[in-house]
Amino acid sequence: MTWGIIATWKMSLAGVTKAAELLANGRPSGDAVESAIEDVEDNPQFNTVGYGGLPNAEGAVELDASFMNGDTLSIGSVASMTDIAHPIAVARSLSHEQLNNFLSGGGANNYAQRHGFAVKTMLTPETQTYWGKQVRKNATRHDVINTHDSVGVVSLDYRGRLHTGSSTSGIFMKAKGRLGDAPLPGAGFYCDNHIAGVTTTGLGEDLMKGMLPFKITQLIADGLTPQEACDKAVYPFIDDLYHRSGHIGAVSVVAMDKNGEWGVATNVDFTFVVATDSLKPTTFLAKRAAGNTTTIEEAGI
Amino acid sequence: MTWGIIATWKMSLAGVTKAAELLANGRPSGDAVESAIEDVEDNPQFNTVGYGGLPNAEGAVELDASFMNGDTLSIGSVASMTDIAHPIAVARSLSHEQLNNFLSGGGANNYAQRHGFAVKTMLTPETQTYWGKQVRKNATRHDVINTHDSVGVVSLDYRGRLHTGSSTSGIFMKAKGRLGDAPLPGAGFYCDNHIAGVTTTGLGEDLMKGMLPFKITQLIADGLTPQEACDKAVYPFIDDLYHRSGHIGAVSVVAMDKNGEWGVATNVDFTFVVATDSLKPTTFLAKRAAGNTTTIEEAGI
Repeated sequence: MTWGIIATWKMSLAGVTKAAELLANGRPSGDAVESAIEDVEDNPQFNTVGYGGLPNAEGAVELDASFMNGDTLSIGSVASMTDIAHPIAVARSLSHEQLNNFLSGGGANNYAQRHGFAVKTMLTPETQTYWGKQVRKNATRHDVINTHDSVGVVSLDYRGRLHTGSSTSGIFMKAKGRLGDAPLPGAGFYCDNHIAGVTTTGLGEDLMKGMLPFKITQLIADGLTPQEACDKAVYPFIDDLYHRSGHIGAVSVVAMDKNGEWGVATNVDFTFVVATDSLKPTTFLAKRAAGNTTTIEEAGI
Repeated sequence: MTWGIIATWKMSLAGVTKAAELLANGRPSGDAVESAIEDVEDNPQFNTVGYGGLPNAEGAVELDASFMNGDTLSIGSVASMTDIAHPIAVARSLSHEQLNNFLSGGGANNYAQRHGFAVKTMLTPETQTYWGKQVRKNATRHDVINTHDSVGVVSLDYRGRLHTGSSTSGIFMKAKGRLGDAPLPGAGFYCDNHIAGVTTTGLGEDLMKGMLPFKITQLIADGLTPQEACDKAVYPFIDDLYHRSGHIGAVSVVAMDKNGEWGVATNVDFTFVVATDSLKPTTFLAKRAAGNTTTIEEAGI
């Protein structure tokens, strides 16, 4: 059996590097997912996830996260949670509950605090200042929709267990209480030990119309490689949605199957990180190419 | 072109009857969906939807709803909204927004009040009394998971437009901020004018693992009838989830395709209502039968 991990955006490199060590040492993929995402959540340089994430229209940092177990199909999700250091850890904990696995707002905060998850002021002086400037200059839709980079991770361990996780502060200047794709099963993530795990990043309002992670998982079950499945699910959806509605936001997906094979698709310049037992942690750059295909090259630093 | 409407639970009969008149008079399916659901939301006899819905563990009635347009794939959802008379109308309004289509908690309330939706105290004296009794006797998990009947509606109009909608107060004694399947795209509903619309009712925590509405839509696109697609998607999922996790909650789905053909599947005694241009509003009872099939008979009053 092999192991592997794939994660969205180059910001995940340090976290994936730590998680790859866990996997190489035989630790479960759920630990690898949580570890990789917590590294991104802790880093204030990354303004779309966790500490230092950009606030909503009211100046509050509202955090979304999810965790899925490919063995039991158990899911945990939080939405619009505030001032908890590691949303991914709360989502993972919720995936172990029998009921009330998906909590929002004050309910998510109550759960996190009752279960002892660390409280932390997630708004930094820098993001508060940036928010104030944008409010004064009336941030436009364009400013808003270009800041929505969730960290999403799929990991496979030596024992064939797949997990997915994701974490984000959502789009900058979002409405209070807004949910994107990150906490939404099927739209933001899906995972089945018998097949594959998939997670997304991009404009949640469009991703929730496509159910790409679930669709890609099904295509892999039908025999496609992860790359073929990503290409086949993502590009026709993007073109169809543009045709129907006249606009399309950023859409990117990463997938890894039960054998550690992986694939991606995107309509932007999309960086992502992969590590497996035969590939040291490496950052790649993906772009859409002709004929519903994806070009992938190693990214510069 | 034909028209049709299908809705979960016999409580939807009066609403479907009104909606069928709208459809027969050439009105759009979006109006039919909203009208049918508002009738259920207004009726305090129905303790799982809208006014008179059962409260959460803290005694508050938190409301979830969704609306989807099968032409544009536009989605509007609210979760954990309080004291707004018609959650379905708020969800429909959100489906017209360019961003922030899915709002929870205070954010959903802010939107509803800013857009002039009627405020109403949704807790009735009867449900408050019932809640108090259950708190005093420490309601069990069994009490809780047997109260989760969302109203879900799929409608097709003369012009071939499909819409879905759903509305619920969620499971009785749920945690504050808990989301079920009703507001979740792909898990609680999906709709595409080119194919079909599907919506669910049952235990949200399990339904969000199955992505049944999206899967059924895909199977219908592949050539199955709505009934074949419901049977093929639902029963293997139910058995697989039971095998993986050792338990399974209630799961029911209703589907209608672009030609007004319909299907259902369920693992409980499931009542639902159908009306088409060739069938007056009729309540049916569905049960699971051998060989992954469904028996359907007209229900007594």
